Order: sequence, then C-alpha cells, then structure tokens
Amino acid sequence: MARADYPEAVRILVDELKRLPGVGARSAERIAIWLMQHPKADPLQLSAALQRAKDEIISCERCGFFATATHCCICDDTSRDDSLLCVVEQATDILPLERSGAFKGRYHCLGGKLSPLDQVSPEDLRIPGLLRRIDGASTRLEVILALGADVEGEATANYLADLLRGKNCSITRIAQGLPAGGGLEHADELTLLRALQGRREI
Amino acid sequence: MARADYPEAVRILVDELKRLPGVGARSAERIAIWLMQHPKADPLQLSAALQRAKDEIISCERCGFFATATHCCICDDTSRDDSLLCVVEQATDILPLERSGAFKGRYHCLGGKLSPLDQVSPEDLRIPGLLRRIDGASTRLEVILALGADVEGEATANYLADLLRGKNCSITRIAQGLPAGGGLEHADELTLLRALQGRREI
Repeated sequence: MARADYPEAVRILVDELKRLPGVGARSAERIAIWLMQHPKADPLQLSAALQRAKDEIISCERCGFFATATHCCICDDTSRDDSLLCVVEQATDILPLERSGAFKGRYHCLGGKLSPLDQVSPEDLRIPGLLRRIDGASTRLEVILALGADVEGEATANYLADLLRGKNCSITRIAQGLPAGGGLEHADELTLLRALQGRREI
Repeated sequence: MARADYPEAVRILVDELKRLPGVGARSAERIAIWLMQHPKADPLQLSAALQRAKDEIISCERCGFFATATHCCICDDTSRDDSLLCVVEQATDILPLERSGAFKGRYHCLGGKLSPLDQVSPEDLRIPGLLRRIDGASTRLEVILALGADVEGEATANYLADLLRGKNCSITRIAQGLPAGGGLEHADELTLLRALQGRREI
C-alpha cells in the first residue's frame, strides 16, 4: 500500500501558498482545501487578480509606491506640500500614514531597512534616489524619517541622519510613540498620528 | 489633497487575499506587497497553480478526498483493508493520519462538522454517501470516527454513533488523552479527564 498524497496540482498549489510571507505548511494546506472545496471560494478570481496586478502594477520611479503609470498618485498630486519628504521602509507603510491624516507631503520608500542579519546593506536600499530628490529640491526640505522603532529601523535612521547631515534639509524623526519592537504595519492610526505630531529634530 | 490609496489592481488583489481563511487585512496587504515587490515572489506561478488546481481537481465521488479522476488514489488502491472505514471531518485530515502509518483502511470525509452556530446541520454533511458505503459493504465494517476533540467534533461523533447503531458495523472513536511529548503540567483539565476515562490496562 502506498501512503496517499495529494494530486500533483494540489501539491503545486500548496507549495506556492507556502512561499507567501506568514503562511506555513498547515495554513497552506488549509487555504488550498478551502480554495478547492468551499462554496464561497473563487480561485480563478484570485488567479485573475494576481495576473492583473502583475500586469498593471509597477513601482513609482520616484517614490517607490505602487503605480500604474511612471509616477504614482501621490507624486502626481499637485496639492501636496513639496517641502515635506517622509522616508518609509516600504510601500505598505504609506497608507497607514495617509489614514492618520497628519501628513500632506511626499513620500520616499527605501524598499527595506538595514539589517546585517538579512544581508541588507545600504546599497540594497533606494538611497541614491533619495539623495537626488533632496539635492534637486527647489526648496529646503524637511526629511521625516518614519522608520520602525525596532533595531533595524533605528540603525537605518541613524545611517540616513549621518548621510544627510550637511545637505540642504532638516532631518526629523517620528516620535517614539510607536510601541517598542513594532513595525509600522502593526501600528494603529492614533499611534501614527501622535508619532507624526511629536517628531523632533535630530 | 486626496488621501492616497493603492491602485485598483492592488486593492482587488488584497480583497481576494483577505477572503482566504486565516488571512486578515494586514496579512493580505503584506502578502500583496511581497507578491508585487519581492525578488523571490512569482505571482504568475501562483496564478497558474490556482488555475491548474481548479481545472484538474475534483472531490472523489466516494470518499471526498482530492481526486483527478472519478475516484481518488486511496479508493483506487486495491491493497487497502476494505473492512476499516475512517470517518474524518475534511480532506486535509487524511494525510496526517496517513503519515502516522497506523491506518491501512479507507476514508470518508464528511466535509465539515455539526455546528449550529455556523449553521452546519446534518444535511450539509456527506452522510448519505457514508450510509450507502456501510449498507453496500461486502464485509462487516469497523467505522472509526476520527473527529476533532472540540465541542462540534463531539456532537458530530455522537450524532453519527446514534445514526449508525443497528447497522452492520462496529463503531469506534479515536482516543483522547495526552498529546505525544506533553507533560501533565501542560494539560488542561478536560484533557486529563478524558485521558483518565480512556485509561487502558497495560
């Protein structure tokens, strides 16, 4: 008797689901069976959404947020304050800040944070583009470092502060209102609002 | 100034991911950005896996396990013991039992468990097929109820035991007790009660 296993198509699907961040082997199986058997599941709709997103979505050339054209809706918004530049780790950090309602300026996504353990060094981050934006600005910028309150976020903020000192910009950092060890994606709107309001020059 | 939001294609993808079991709003965003931006991500491969699984996979007519033909690899395996029928809640319960190496018989997936809160009643489960298999069996079956140790699993086991009494089969239920490797100090009262009730002579 051979031990039973899933048909190949299910095994492939489970393997693909397992690769997603935060999805382990058991969750991948649970999601796969749900997709195959639950009346409310629509795997073809998810499949189509993946294809459409892959086809349409690019990173904004300037700031790194999601875009469908060369520049994203934030960079294209002429009503924003050009003298404020908020530096975040990743594109998903932008919407929580937007929802706080406390920021009307521009953003710059680094695409990560310094982390020797994960082999992320300065050249892996979108730092050259940040320098170009500061150097090319028509006004003196306030560069707001809105990085997480974890070790890597601290290291990244300190690295950038050193790098930008002497440039035609002031450098601030959102207040330590963030709960220790938490990244931006876990923070609630009020915490982010307080953190933005409490920023101080470094 | 309009508050920024993701492009439509990203919002659709996040919405589809949010529908998956165990994936909340934050995880869905995190998975979506990973799929769009991580160098190791391959959304088109996941998309293709979903389509292939949807195209190829059906439920085995007889037992409810995943299949690509009318019957699954377990029902088609002639070397299995036809006198043992193991009743499980869902198709994903089968492989853990297979991996235990302790069972060489056949399976029957109910497709759920009785749960008044979730509006799951007997007619939502694959019970008629189970009765047909017992009535049509050429030998007297041992029906092993391998259902969860939660309230709904108990209720489902009791319901089935009542239903099957008087049929040409014996009814057993998998043991409840201490999990392997677990010490008494970590066990809850109900587990210890069940473990005591299920004690066997050695």
